[in-house]
Amino acid sequence: MFITFEGIEGVGKTTQLKFVAEELKKAGIIFLTTREPGGTEVGEEIRDVLLAHRYEPFVPITELLLMFAARAQHVETIILPAIKKGLWVLCDRFTDATYAYQGGGRGMDLEKIKGLEALVLNNFAPDITFLFDAPAKVGLERVKGRGGHPDRFELEKIDFFERVRRTYLERAKAYPKRFRVINADESLEKVQSEVKSVLKSFKELGDRRGV
Amino acid sequence: MFITFEGIEGVGKTTQLKFVAEELKKAGIIFLTTREPGGTEVGEEIRDVLLAHRYEPFVPITELLLMFAARAQHVETIILPAIKKGLWVLCDRFTDATYAYQGGGRGMDLEKIKGLEALVLNNFAPDITFLFDAPAKVGLERVKGRGGHPDRFELEKIDFFERVRRTYLERAKAYPKRFRVINADESLEKVQSEVKSVLKSFKELGDRRGV
Repeated sequence: MFITFEGIEGVGKTTQLKFVAEELKKAGIIFLTTREPGGTEVGEEIRDVLLAHRYEPFVPITELLLMFAARAQHVETIILPAIKKGLWVLCDRFTDATYAYQGGGRGMDLEKIKGLEALVLNNFAPDITFLFDAPAKVGLERVKGRGGHPDRFELEKIDFFERVRRTYLERAKAYPKRFRVINADESLEKVQSEVKSVLKSFKELGDRRGV
Repeated sequence: MFITFEGIEGVGKTTQLKFVAEELKKAGIIFLTTREPGGTEVGEEIRDVLLAHRYEPFVPITELLLMFAARAQHVETIILPAIKKGLWVLCDRFTDATYAYQGGGRGMDLEKIKGLEALVLNNFAPDITFLFDAPAKVGLERVKGRGGHPDRFELEKIDFFERVRRTYLERAKAYPKRFRVINADESLEKVQSEVKSVLKSFKELGDRRGV
């Protein structure tokens, strides 16, 4: 099983990934957790280039190519070998984030992203994608609450994140079998119980697949 | 005019680029010199990722995407704006190097490179490409003579550079109008006089184009 965690900043996807990891551990399932962009040595270096602040703005296609460069390294050296060994892989963001951020957020042609997805990944996609959904305002207020120095994406304006959110929801609608949309504008307990009920259905799925 | 300088390590392309720059200066032509991978702030950061030594090997498509990421930034922010202003651009390596190194050298599918070239650059190409040609052995001995710490590409074996060279020559054959192949296994004087005679034909070309 390859499971991804998606959503805008501050919706709690990283917290929920950790929660799922704990649940899998309890169930005796062997898994690996990773994140994008990054996940590999090369990928983390690319992540640094992507998140750095600098005077020179990114050409949108450059940002897009860097995302896919990090992803190609990640898929080939980490994700596919783990899946082949029978591990579950939990990944913080994947290609859906590229559609949402570079497509929805930056307004890049979605067909260009689709072209790269086919060229680079041969359309390799997750089995299940959790989408944690909340209004951009809610997410951004939580990010502010964290403190620390915001990265290049976190400095974007609220309408950028609303476009990102909208694109995520459109993708969830287009791939209903893969997506599990969770309302993240709720208490942690409520969100976790929703995640847990999705996990139950996975376990059955896993059983059916002989995992 | 967009002029590129290509060839394997140690054939003297950077020296010849400087020579052409001097000649253009004498002729009162306004130009800009740049290099790949790099040429921009983002591009130089990507160059660092590409040339660094690390334990983790690159997935070939990752290297390819990084090359095009740096190139997209370079074309959009440096090369096209300069050409629009009427400047000549002299560039140390461009897309032909990607075909030669990642295609010929690493054995990546040339059709994949072609797909990216179309997707990222809309097939934007140089007006003239100097290809400095010499056996890999000759080039590598000159690189050794330079001293200093070799980068990741310079550590490749001789048959890698012979494949690179062969691919360069194949491209020169496929695009005879654009390429000027110069025998670099000659004295500096002989190479410069060949370059100079090509420059003369440019000038006429420039005159015809009203440069």
